[in-house]
Amino acid sequence: MVASGSGGELAFIQNLRALATHPAARGLNDDCAVLELGAETLILTHDMMAEGVHFLARQDPADVAWKLVATNLSDLASKGAQPLGVLLGYSLGGDDARFVAGLVAALAAYDTPLLGGDTIALSDADTGPRTFGLTAIGRATHLPVPSRAGARVGDLLWLTGAVGGAMLGLEALLAEDPDPEHSRAYRRPIPLLAQGQALAPSVTAMMDVSDGLLLDAARLARASGITLTIAKSAIPIATSEARRDEALRWGDDYQLLFTQPPGTEPPVLAHCIGEALVAGDDPIVLDGVPLNEASGLGYQHGPARSAG
Amino acid sequence: MVASGSGGELAFIQNLRALATHPAARGLNDDCAVLELGAETLILTHDMMAEGVHFLARQDPADVAWKLVATNLSDLASKGAQPLGVLLGYSLGGDDARFVAGLVAALAAYDTPLLGGDTIALSDADTGPRTFGLTAIGRATHLPVPSRAGARVGDLLWLTGAVGGAMLGLEALLAEDPDPEHSRAYRRPIPLLAQGQALAPSVTAMMDVSDGLLLDAARLARASGITLTIAKSAIPIATSEARRDEALRWGDDYQLLFTQPPGTEPPVLAHCIGEALVAGDDPIVLDGVPLNEASGLGYQHGPARSAG
Repeated sequence: MVASGSGGELAFIQNLRALATHPAARGLNDDCAVLELGAETLILTHDMMAEGVHFLARQDPADVAWKLVATNLSDLASKGAQPLGVLLGYSLGGDDARFVAGLVAALAAYDTPLLGGDTIALSDADTGPRTFGLTAIGRATHLPVPSRAGARVGDLLWLTGAVGGAMLGLEALLAEDPDPEHSRAYRRPIPLLAQGQALAPSVTAMMDVSDGLLLDAARLARASGITLTIAKSAIPIATSEARRDEALRWGDDYQLLFTQPPGTEPPVLAHCIGEALVAGDDPIVLDGVPLNEASGLGYQHGPARSAG
Repeated sequence: MVASGSGGELAFIQNLRALATHPAARGLNDDCAVLELGAETLILTHDMMAEGVHFLARQDPADVAWKLVATNLSDLASKGAQPLGVLLGYSLGGDDARFVAGLVAALAAYDTPLLGGDTIALSDADTGPRTFGLTAIGRATHLPVPSRAGARVGDLLWLTGAVGGAMLGLEALLAEDPDPEHSRAYRRPIPLLAQGQALAPSVTAMMDVSDGLLLDAARLARASGITLTIAKSAIPIATSEARRDEALRWGDDYQLLFTQPPGTEPPVLAHCIGEALVAGDDPIVLDGVPLNEASGLGYQHGPARSAG
């Protein structure tokens, strides 16, 4: 539950933060709650998706279900967690059978059981956008559980793969591109569960990139109390060089972003894109240019927002 | 996640049920999922509330937040669970500060931390009903965890308190009764957590009464493979004798309904209202009259539905 968006949303989350004093809540500043229970450590997350904001009304409900599962499991991945199951909150009224088909596919792909949930039926007179919620429950595979707050000065910054693919995917979808492969990155993101588990023992900080690389990197920097210097050309992108700046600011790619002490090689394929410096005025320095949330980190939450 | 309502909802839940094969899901036939994890047993539930279905658009958001917490914690109560925390799924756009105030009050009353969640901001153009979701996580205080399925022939059926209070409360709200106490039972239901924990070791089956006493009793009977004979006059009601039949069919009272072997006294205040018989054609026999879901159990899901 990270503030991003309107003033009303920021104010609401500030109010919640005052309420979320339990250490497991991590101040609502992380991807997940981390709750010790006996000898186990639970990892808990709840993400919502709304028509017109996070998906297009005309999208295949099977893709919507997939993405709902994938985005929540991606949060677990960023903690190195193993999924134990999900609970679904579902508003009836679309092609519900297609939604179930996508749910079946996503849960099978990541060997995650459906444990329960709730469905509601709005009245026929209600034509507002439908919203779905999913709670994912996992168990930590490594202690301490990675957070966003652990990066130290001198650590190197790594990214597991290219960004910008979801941007191209949404464009293909909006253009009604007949080849479904062209929109796959947007429709069917892949939660990097195996990578997250492999990385958990060696990272000093980790998160998944959901709202855009630069914005999410700034969050990691703020949480850790450092500044991240990033080399633009080192960032792998899924699009043409001409669109590099856009690719760094679009979301929905679900790569893992993490820091490790210098001299250590990540145990999974990853690209070194920067380094942690002593905190300056701004959380990010991109090719020598300081950037903060008000200047140039960009924000494209749901790319579907503009198309909703 | 229990089927109740439209054909579409029933079909959807049937589809989900085929997917929910993990034993922790309990076939989606129980109030909660029950997941063993190391030496602990997790109790998980997710309930949603929608404007116009579960609450009135003009209701105080603080009451809506309270009820969202209370209904989920009531599910935990029916398992004898101790709450560990909640995750909130929230759609911005009403009096968000009032919602937080109600959340603070409910979580403080039941000593339950907010662990995380998600908020979404629909566009200003969206005027549809808002929906909220809450996931409650608890730990079992007694094994085996009570289910709906454990009632045996000869067991006695008990109810912790009166039904019909929420019916009167909604009516007071609709009539704009100036005394808030008159609508309290509907606005601020009380999850019987302490009672549930005290009862867990001695019950053979237990559930909370959310959709109406007779309908929920029928679910317990079906799950247990017995028929419940119920004496109408033994059921405590919060309304006049003239409205007894209605009180047995309205929901939202959140009493605990449970069975115990004969000859054992419940450890909390409760009223003996019936007995488990060998399964007949119908799940309920009320004052000698057989009743099933198609005849006379009634269904008033969200009393707000008709007022939405």
